[in-house]
Amino acid sequence: MKKIKLSTLHRIQLIDITHKIQKLIKEEKINSGIIVIYSPHTTAGITINENADPDVQKDIISFLNKTIPQDPSFHHIEGNSDAHIKGSLTNFSQTFIIENGKIQLGTWQAVYFCEFDGPRQREVWIQFNSN
Amino acid sequence: MKKIKLSTLHRIQLIDITHKIQKLIKEEKINSGIIVIYSPHTTAGITINENADPDVQKDIISFLNKTIPQDPSFHHIEGNSDAHIKGSLTNFSQTFIIENGKIQLGTWQAVYFCEFDGPRQREVWIQFNSN
Amino acid sequence: MKKIKLSTLHRIQLIDITHKIQKLIKEEKINSGIIVIYSPHTTAGITINENADPDVQKDIISFLNKTIPQDPSFHHIEGNSDAHIKGSLTNFSQTFIIENGKIQLGTWQAVYFCEFDGPRQREVWIQFNSN
Repeated sequence: MKKIKLSTLHRIQLIDITHKIQKLIKEEKINSGIIVIYSPHTTAGITINENADPDVQKDIISFLNKTIPQDPSFHHIEGNSDAHIKGSLTNFSQTFIIENGKIQLGTWQAVYFCEFDGPRQREVWIQFNSN
Repeated sequence: MKKIKLSTLHRIQLIDITHKIQKLIKEEKINSGIIVIYSPHTTAGITINENADPDVQKDIISFLNKTIPQDPSFHHIEGNSDAHIKGSLTNFSQTFIIENGKIQLGTWQAVYFCEFDGPRQREVWIQFNSN
Repeated sequence: MKKIKLSTLHRIQLIDITHKIQKLIKEEKINSGIIVIYSPHTTAGITINENADPDVQKDIISFLNKTIPQDPSFHHIEGNSDAHIKGSLTNFSQTFIIENGKIQLGTWQAVYFCEFDGPRQREVWIQFNSN
Protein backbone atom coordinates (compact mmCIF):
# COMPACT_ATOMS: atom_id res chain seq x y z
CA MET A 1 0.00 0.00 0.00
CA LYS A 2 1.22 3.49 -0.83
CA LYS A 3 0.21 6.80 0.76
CA ILE A 4 -0.12 10.35 -0.53
CA LYS A 5 -0.18 13.24 1.94
CA LEU A 6 -2.27 16.34 1.29
CA SER A 7 -2.82 19.68 3.02
CA THR A 8 -6.26 21.07 2.26
CA LEU A 9 -6.95 24.80 2.39
CA HIS A 10 -10.72 25.21 2.65
CA ARG A 11 -13.68 23.55 4.37
CA ILE A 12 -14.84 22.14 1.02
CA GLN A 13 -12.34 21.67 -1.78
CA LEU A 14 -11.76 19.33 -4.71
CA ILE A 15 -8.04 18.60 -5.28
CA ASP A 16 -6.87 17.00 -8.53
CA ILE A 17 -4.56 14.10 -7.50
CA THR A 18 -4.27 12.50 -10.96
CA HIS A 19 -0.60 13.36 -11.52
CA LYS A 20 0.40 12.07 -8.06
CA ILE A 21 -1.32 8.74 -8.78
CA GLN A 22 0.24 8.45 -12.22
CA LYS A 23 3.68 9.09 -10.68
CA LEU A 24 3.14 6.18 -8.22
CA ILE A 25 2.06 3.82 -11.00
CA LYS A 26 5.27 4.67 -12.89
CA GLU A 27 7.47 4.22 -9.80
CA GLU A 28 5.86 0.85 -9.02
CA LYS A 29 6.22 -0.22 -12.68
CA ILE A 30 2.63 -1.52 -12.86
CA ASN A 31 1.82 -2.26 -16.49
CA SER A 32 -1.70 -3.68 -16.38
CA GLY A 33 -4.20 -4.23 -13.58
CA ILE A 34 -6.40 -2.23 -11.28
CA ILE A 35 -5.79 0.47 -8.69
CA VAL A 36 -7.86 1.32 -5.61
CA ILE A 37 -7.77 4.96 -4.46
CA TYR A 38 -9.01 5.16 -0.87
CA SER A 39 -9.75 7.97 1.61
CA PRO A 40 -9.17 6.79 5.22
CA HIS A 41 -11.24 9.72 6.52
CA THR A 42 -14.97 9.92 7.31
CA THR A 43 -15.36 13.51 6.11
CA ALA A 44 -13.37 13.41 2.84
CA GLY A 45 -14.09 11.30 -0.24
CA ILE A 46 -12.73 10.46 -3.69
CA THR A 47 -14.52 11.23 -6.96
CA ILE A 48 -13.93 11.59 -10.67
CA ASN A 49 -14.94 14.60 -12.72
CA GLU A 50 -13.99 17.13 -15.38
CA ASN A 51 -10.41 18.44 -15.46
CA ALA A 52 -10.98 21.31 -17.92
CA ASP A 53 -13.40 24.01 -16.71
CA PRO A 54 -12.94 24.73 -12.95
CA ASP A 55 -16.57 25.94 -12.91
CA VAL A 56 -17.63 22.27 -12.86
CA GLN A 57 -15.91 21.82 -9.48
CA LYS A 58 -17.50 25.07 -8.28
CA ASP A 59 -20.97 23.83 -9.33
CA ILE A 60 -20.47 20.42 -7.67
CA ILE A 61 -19.45 22.12 -4.40
CA SER A 62 -22.32 24.61 -4.53
CA PHE A 63 -24.84 21.81 -5.21
CA LEU A 64 -23.51 19.69 -2.32
CA ASN A 65 -23.59 22.65 0.08
CA LYS A 66 -27.16 23.54 -0.91
CA THR A 67 -28.49 19.96 -0.81
CA ILE A 68 -26.51 18.78 2.24
CA PRO A 69 -26.22 21.90 4.44
CA GLN A 70 -24.74 22.17 7.94
CA ASP A 71 -28.21 21.58 9.36
CA PRO A 72 -28.50 22.55 13.06
CA SER A 73 -31.06 19.73 13.55
CA PHE A 74 -28.31 17.11 13.11
CA HIS A 75 -27.45 15.33 16.39
CA HIS A 76 -23.69 14.69 15.98
CA ILE A 77 -22.06 17.02 18.47
CA GLU A 78 -19.10 17.93 16.24
CA GLY A 79 -21.50 19.77 13.90
CA ASN A 80 -20.02 18.23 10.75
CA SER A 81 -22.63 15.60 9.91
CA ASP A 82 -23.01 17.24 6.50
CA ALA A 83 -19.39 16.31 5.76
CA HIS A 84 -19.98 12.66 6.77
CA ILE A 85 -23.02 12.51 4.44
CA LYS A 86 -21.19 14.23 1.56
CA GLY A 87 -18.45 11.60 1.93
CA SER A 88 -20.83 8.63 1.83
CA LEU A 89 -22.61 10.02 -1.24
CA THR A 90 -19.50 10.84 -3.30
CA ASN A 91 -17.84 7.66 -1.96
CA PHE A 92 -14.63 7.06 -0.03
CA SER A 93 -13.17 4.54 -2.49
CA GLN A 94 -12.82 4.46 -6.27
CA THR A 95 -11.36 1.72 -8.46
CA PHE A 96 -9.59 2.40 -11.76
CA ILE A 97 -8.08 0.46 -14.64
CA ILE A 98 -4.32 0.49 -15.36
CA GLU A 99 -3.15 -0.36 -18.89
CA ASN A 100 0.19 0.30 -20.61
CA GLY A 101 1.57 1.67 -17.35
CA LYS A 102 -1.09 4.38 -17.11
CA ILE A 103 -4.29 5.03 -15.17
CA GLN A 104 -7.06 4.82 -17.76
CA LEU A 105 -9.14 8.00 -17.66
CA GLY A 106 -11.46 9.53 -20.24
CA THR A 107 -10.22 12.64 -22.08
CA TRP A 108 -11.90 15.05 -19.65
CA GLN A 109 -11.57 13.02 -16.45
CA ALA A 110 -9.41 13.71 -13.39
CA VAL A 111 -9.32 12.00 -9.98
CA TYR A 112 -10.29 14.34 -7.16
CA PHE A 113 -9.73 14.16 -3.43
CA CYS A 114 -12.86 15.76 -1.91
CA GLU A 115 -12.27 17.67 1.32
CA PHE A 116 -15.60 18.22 3.10
CA ASP A 117 -14.43 19.38 6.55
CA GLY A 118 -11.09 21.13 6.12
CA PRO A 119 -8.66 22.63 6.24
CA ARG A 120 -6.74 19.58 7.50
CA GLN A 121 -3.79 17.28 6.91
CA ARG A 122 -5.15 14.32 4.93
CA GLU A 123 -3.98 11.05 3.37
CA VAL A 124 -4.94 9.02 0.32
CA TRP A 125 -4.18 5.30 0.37
CA ILE A 126 -3.43 3.40 -2.86
CA GLN A 127 -3.33 -0.32 -3.60
CA PHE A 128 -2.36 -1.99 -6.89
CA ASN A 129 -3.36 -5.39 -8.22
CA SER A 130 -1.30 -6.41 -11.25
CA ASN A 131 -2.53 -8.74 -13.96
CA MET B 1 -8.84 -3.76 -21.06
CA LYS B 2 -11.99 -4.32 -23.12
CA LYS B 3 -14.42 -1.72 -24.49
CA ILE B 4 -18.16 -1.75 -25.14
CA LYS B 5 -19.64 0.89 -27.46
CA LEU B 6 -23.13 2.30 -26.86
CA SER B 7 -25.42 4.75 -28.64
CA THR B 8 -27.74 6.47 -26.20
CA LEU B 9 -31.12 7.82 -27.32
CA HIS B 10 -32.22 10.32 -24.67
CA ARG B 11 -30.71 13.00 -22.42
CA ILE B 12 -31.18 10.73 -19.40
CA GLN B 13 -31.39 6.99 -19.87
CA LEU B 14 -30.46 3.83 -17.98
CA ILE B 15 -29.22 1.05 -20.29
CA ASP B 16 -28.92 -2.52 -19.05
CA ILE B 17 -25.43 -3.73 -20.07
CA THR B 18 -25.42 -6.97 -18.02
CA HIS B 19 -25.58 -9.35 -21.00
CA LYS B 20 -22.74 -7.53 -22.82
CA ILE B 21 -20.55 -7.86 -19.72
CA GLN B 22 -21.39 -11.51 -19.22
CA LYS B 23 -20.51 -12.17 -22.90
CA LEU B 24 -17.05 -10.60 -22.38
CA ILE B 25 -16.41 -12.68 -19.24
CA LYS B 26 -17.22 -15.83 -21.22
CA GLU B 27 -15.01 -14.80 -24.17
CA GLU B 28 -12.10 -14.03 -21.84
CA LYS B 29 -12.64 -17.34 -19.98
CA ILE B 30 -12.39 -15.67 -16.55
CA ASN B 31 -13.48 -18.22 -13.93
CA SER B 32 -12.98 -16.39 -10.62
CA GLY B 33 -11.89 -12.86 -9.73
CA ILE B 34 -13.17 -9.32 -9.94
CA ILE B 35 -14.29 -7.06 -12.77
CA VAL B 36 -14.19 -3.25 -12.93
CA ILE B 37 -16.87 -1.57 -15.07
CA TYR B 38 -15.79 2.00 -15.82
CA SER B 39 -17.36 4.99 -17.58
CA PRO B 40 -14.66 7.21 -19.18
CA HIS B 41 -17.14 10.10 -19.41
CA THR B 42 -17.83 12.94 -16.94
CA THR B 43 -21.58 13.04 -17.62
CA ALA B 44 -22.43 9.31 -17.64
CA GLY B 45 -22.07 6.83 -14.78
CA ILE B 46 -22.50 3.16 -13.90
CA THR B 47 -24.96 1.84 -11.35
CA ILE B 48 -26.73 -1.32 -10.25
CA ASN B 49 -30.48 -1.65 -9.81
CA GLU B 50 -33.61 -3.70 -10.40
CA ASN B 51 -33.97 -5.57 -13.69
CA ALA B 52 -37.65 -6.49 -13.36
CA ASP B 53 -40.05 -3.53 -13.19
CA PRO B 54 -38.97 -0.70 -15.57
CA ASP B 55 -40.84 1.72 -13.28
CA VAL B 56 -37.85 1.54 -10.91
CA GLN B 57 -35.64 3.08 -13.62
CA LYS B 58 -38.33 5.68 -14.31
CA ASP B 59 -38.48 6.61 -10.59
CA ILE B 60 -34.68 6.84 -10.30
CA ILE B 61 -34.55 9.18 -13.31
CA SER B 62 -37.43 11.31 -12.07
CA PHE B 63 -35.84 11.61 -8.60
CA LEU B 64 -32.45 12.61 -10.06
CA ASN B 65 -34.05 15.21 -12.35
CA LYS B 66 -36.05 16.73 -9.51
CA THR B 67 -33.18 16.76 -6.99
CA ILE B 68 -30.37 17.73 -9.41
CA PRO B 69 -32.10 19.98 -11.98
CA GLN B 70 -30.50 21.92 -14.84
CA ASP B 71 -30.17 24.92 -12.53
CA PRO B 72 -29.51 28.19 -14.42
CA SER B 73 -27.42 29.42 -11.46
CA PHE B 74 -24.69 26.89 -12.28
CA HIS B 75 -21.53 28.53 -13.68
CA HIS B 76 -20.27 25.87 -16.14
CA ILE B 77 -20.89 27.39 -19.56
CA GLU B 78 -21.95 24.15 -21.23
CA GLY B 79 -25.10 24.13 -19.07
CA ASN B 80 -24.77 20.46 -18.13
CA SER B 81 -23.43 20.72 -14.57
CA ASP B 82 -26.42 18.66 -13.43
CA ALA B 83 -25.09 15.76 -15.51
CA HIS B 84 -21.62 16.05 -13.95
CA ILE B 85 -23.17 15.98 -10.47
CA LYS B 86 -25.48 13.06 -11.32
CA GLY B 87 -22.39 11.16 -12.49
CA SER B 88 -20.38 11.79 -9.32
CA LEU B 89 -23.32 10.74 -7.12
CA THR B 90 -24.21 7.51 -8.96
CA ASN B 91 -20.48 6.86 -9.50
CA PHE B 92 -18.40 6.37 -12.63
CA SER B 93 -16.96 3.00 -11.62
CA GLN B 94 -18.39 -0.18 -10.09
CA THR B 95 -16.55 -3.34 -9.07
CA PHE B 96 -18.15 -6.80 -9.22
CA ILE B 97 -17.33 -10.36 -8.23
CA ILE B 98 -16.79 -13.12 -10.84
CA GLU B 99 -17.30 -16.74 -9.77
CA ASN B 100 -17.84 -19.89 -11.87
CA GLY B 101 -17.32 -17.82 -15.02
CA LYS B 102 -20.22 -15.48 -14.22
CA ILE B 103 -20.69 -11.95 -12.89
CA GLN B 104 -22.27 -12.40 -9.46
CA LEU B 105 -25.47 -10.38 -9.24
CA GLY B 106 -28.44 -10.69 -6.93
CA THR B 107 -31.66 -12.15 -8.37
CA TRP B 108 -33.13 -8.73 -9.19
CA GLN B 109 -29.90 -6.88 -10.05
CA ALA B 110 -28.71 -5.60 -13.43
CA VAL B 111 -25.73 -3.40 -14.34
CA TYR B 112 -26.82 -0.07 -15.88
CA PHE B 113 -24.93 2.46 -17.94
CA CYS B 114 -26.40 5.83 -16.87
CA GLU B 115 -26.55 8.45 -19.62
CA PHE B 116 -27.04 11.90 -18.07
CA ASP B 117 -26.30 14.18 -21.06
CA GLY B 118 -27.26 12.30 -24.22
CA PRO B 119 -27.96 11.34 -26.81
CA ARG B 120 -24.31 10.51 -27.58
CA GLN B 121 -21.88 7.80 -28.63
CA ARG B 122 -20.45 6.36 -25.40
CA GLU B 123 -17.99 3.72 -24.21
CA VAL B 124 -17.74 1.43 -21.19
CA TRP B 125 -14.28 0.17 -20.21
CA ILE B 126 -13.82 -3.21 -18.54
CA GLN B 127 -10.87 -4.70 -16.67
CA PHE B 128 -10.58 -8.22 -15.20
CA ASN B 129 -8.41 -9.43 -12.36
CA SER B 130 -8.33 -13.23 -12.13
CA ASN B 131 -7.73 -15.19 -8.94
CA MET C 1 -16.54 -15.86 -2.90
CA LYS C 2 -17.66 -15.79 0.73
CA LYS C 3 -21.07 -14.84 2.13
CA ILE C 4 -22.19 -13.18 5.36
CA LYS C 5 -25.82 -13.51 6.43
CA LEU C 6 -27.61 -10.71 8.28
CA SER C 7 -31.04 -10.20 9.86
CA THR C 8 -32.04 -6.56 9.81
CA LEU C 9 -34.47 -5.16 12.38
CA HIS C 10 -35.76 -1.87 10.96
CA ARG C 11 -36.83 -0.40 7.62
CA ILE C 12 -33.64 1.72 7.56
CA GLN C 13 -30.63 0.63 9.54
CA LEU C 14 -26.83 0.85 9.29
CA ILE C 15 -25.11 -2.32 10.58
CA ASP C 16 -21.38 -2.33 11.31
CA ILE C 17 -19.96 -5.44 9.58
CA THR C 18 -16.26 -4.60 10.02
CA HIS C 19 -15.48 -7.37 12.53
CA LYS C 20 -17.21 -10.02 10.36
CA ILE C 21 -15.09 -8.96 7.37
CA GLN C 22 -11.87 -8.92 9.37
CA LYS C 23 -12.68 -12.45 10.63
CA LEU C 24 -13.01 -13.69 7.03
CA ILE C 25 -9.72 -12.09 5.99
CA LYS C 26 -8.00 -13.90 8.88
CA GLU C 27 -9.65 -17.24 8.06
CA GLU C 28 -8.67 -16.94 4.39
CA LYS C 29 -5.11 -15.92 5.37
CA ILE C 30 -5.02 -13.01 2.90
CA ASN C 31 -1.95 -10.93 3.65
CA SER C 32 -2.01 -8.21 0.97
CA GLY C 33 -4.46 -7.35 -1.80
CA ILE C 34 -7.94 -5.96 -2.23
CA ILE C 35 -11.38 -6.99 -1.01
CA VAL C 36 -14.75 -6.29 -2.66
CA ILE C 37 -17.76 -6.03 -0.31
CA TYR C 38 -20.95 -6.44 -2.33
CA SER C 39 -24.68 -6.21 -1.58
CA PRO C 40 -26.68 -8.52 -3.91
CA HIS C 41 -29.88 -6.60 -3.11
CA THR C 42 -31.47 -3.63 -4.91
CA THR C 43 -32.72 -1.96 -1.72
CA ALA C 44 -29.65 -2.32 0.54
CA GLY C 45 -26.18 -0.86 0.01
CA ILE C 46 -22.69 -0.77 1.50
CA THR C 47 -21.01 2.35 2.83
CA ILE C 48 -18.19 3.51 5.06
CA ASN C 49 -18.56 5.98 7.92
CA GLU C 50 -17.75 6.86 11.51
CA ASN C 51 -17.61 4.08 14.10
CA ALA C 52 -17.51 6.27 17.22
CA ASP C 53 -20.57 8.47 17.74
CA PRO C 54 -23.81 6.65 16.78
CA ASP C 55 -25.38 10.06 16.14
CA VAL C 56 -23.53 10.13 12.81
CA GLN C 57 -25.53 7.08 11.66
CA LYS C 58 -28.72 8.71 12.97
CA ASP C 59 -27.97 11.90 10.99
CA ILE C 60 -27.16 9.97 7.78
CA ILE C 61 -30.47 8.08 8.05
CA SER C 62 -32.48 11.22 8.82
CA PHE C 63 -30.88 13.06 5.87
CA LEU C 64 -31.60 10.18 3.47
CA ASN C 65 -35.22 9.91 4.64
CA LYS C 66 -35.80 13.64 4.25
CA THR C 67 -34.09 13.93 0.86
CA ILE C 68 -35.32 10.63 -0.62
CA PRO C 69 -38.79 10.15 0.92
CA GLN C 70 -41.33 7.43 0.16
CA ASP C 71 -42.90 9.73 -2.42
CA PRO C 72 -46.42 8.62 -3.48
CA SER C 73 -45.76 9.99 -6.99
CA PHE C 74 -43.25 7.17 -7.65
CA HIS C 75 -44.57 4.61 -10.17
CA HIS C 76 -43.01 1.35 -8.87
CA ILE C 77 -45.95 -0.61 -7.48
CA GLU C 78 -44.05 -2.02 -4.49
CA GLY C 79 -43.85 1.49 -3.02
CA ASN C 80 -40.15 1.20 -2.15
CA SER C 81 -38.56 3.26 -4.95
CA ASP C 82 -36.95 5.42 -2.26
CA ALA C 83 -34.99 2.35 -1.09
CA HIS C 84 -33.80 1.61 -4.66
CA ILE C 85 -32.59 5.21 -5.01
CA LYS C 86 -30.93 5.23 -1.58
CA GLY C 87 -29.06 2.09 -2.64
CA SER C 88 -27.80 3.53 -5.93
CA LEU C 89 -26.62 6.73 -4.19
CA THR C 90 -24.77 5.08 -1.28
CA ASN C 91 -23.58 2.35 -3.65
CA PHE C 92 -24.04 -1.43 -3.61
CA SER C 93 -20.32 -2.23 -3.69
CA GLN C 94 -17.19 -0.93 -1.96
CA THR C 95 -13.57 -1.92 -2.53
CA PHE C 96 -10.98 -1.91 0.26
CA ILE C 97 -7.25 -2.44 0.69
CA ILE C 98 -5.84 -5.42 2.65
CA GLU C 99 -2.32 -5.12 4.10
CA ASN C 100 -0.60 -7.16 6.85
CA GLY C 101 -3.63 -9.43 7.00
CA LYS C 102 -6.01 -6.60 7.86
CA ILE C 103 -8.64 -4.49 6.12
CA GLN C 104 -7.13 -0.99 5.96
CA LEU C 105 -9.55 1.50 7.50
CA GLY C 106 -8.97 4.97 8.88
CA THR C 107 -9.05 5.39 12.67
CA TRP C 108 -12.72 6.38 12.73
CA GLN C 109 -13.96 4.26 9.82
CA ALA C 110 -16.24 1.22 9.90
CA VAL C 111 -17.89 -0.72 7.03
CA TYR C 112 -21.69 -0.52 7.16
CA PHE C 113 -24.37 -2.66 5.55
CA CYS C 114 -27.20 -0.21 4.77
CA GLU C 115 -30.70 -1.66 5.04
CA PHE C 116 -33.16 0.61 3.23
CA ASP C 117 -36.26 -1.63 3.04
CA GLY C 118 -36.19 -3.96 6.04
CA PRO C 119 -36.60 -5.79 8.21
CA ARG C 120 -35.37 -8.70 6.05
CA GLN C 121 -32.89 -11.56 5.80
CA ARG C 122 -29.92 -10.20 3.81
CA GLU C 123 -26.53 -11.30 2.48
CA VAL C 124 -23.20 -9.62 1.88
CA TRP C 125 -20.88 -11.16 -0.72
CA ILE C 126 -17.10 -10.89 -0.40
CA GLN C 127 -14.32 -11.48 -2.92
CA PHE C 128 -10.56 -11.31 -2.31
CA ASN C 129 -7.78 -10.64 -4.77
CA SER C 130 -4.34 -11.40 -3.31
CA ASN C 131 -1.15 -9.69 -4.39
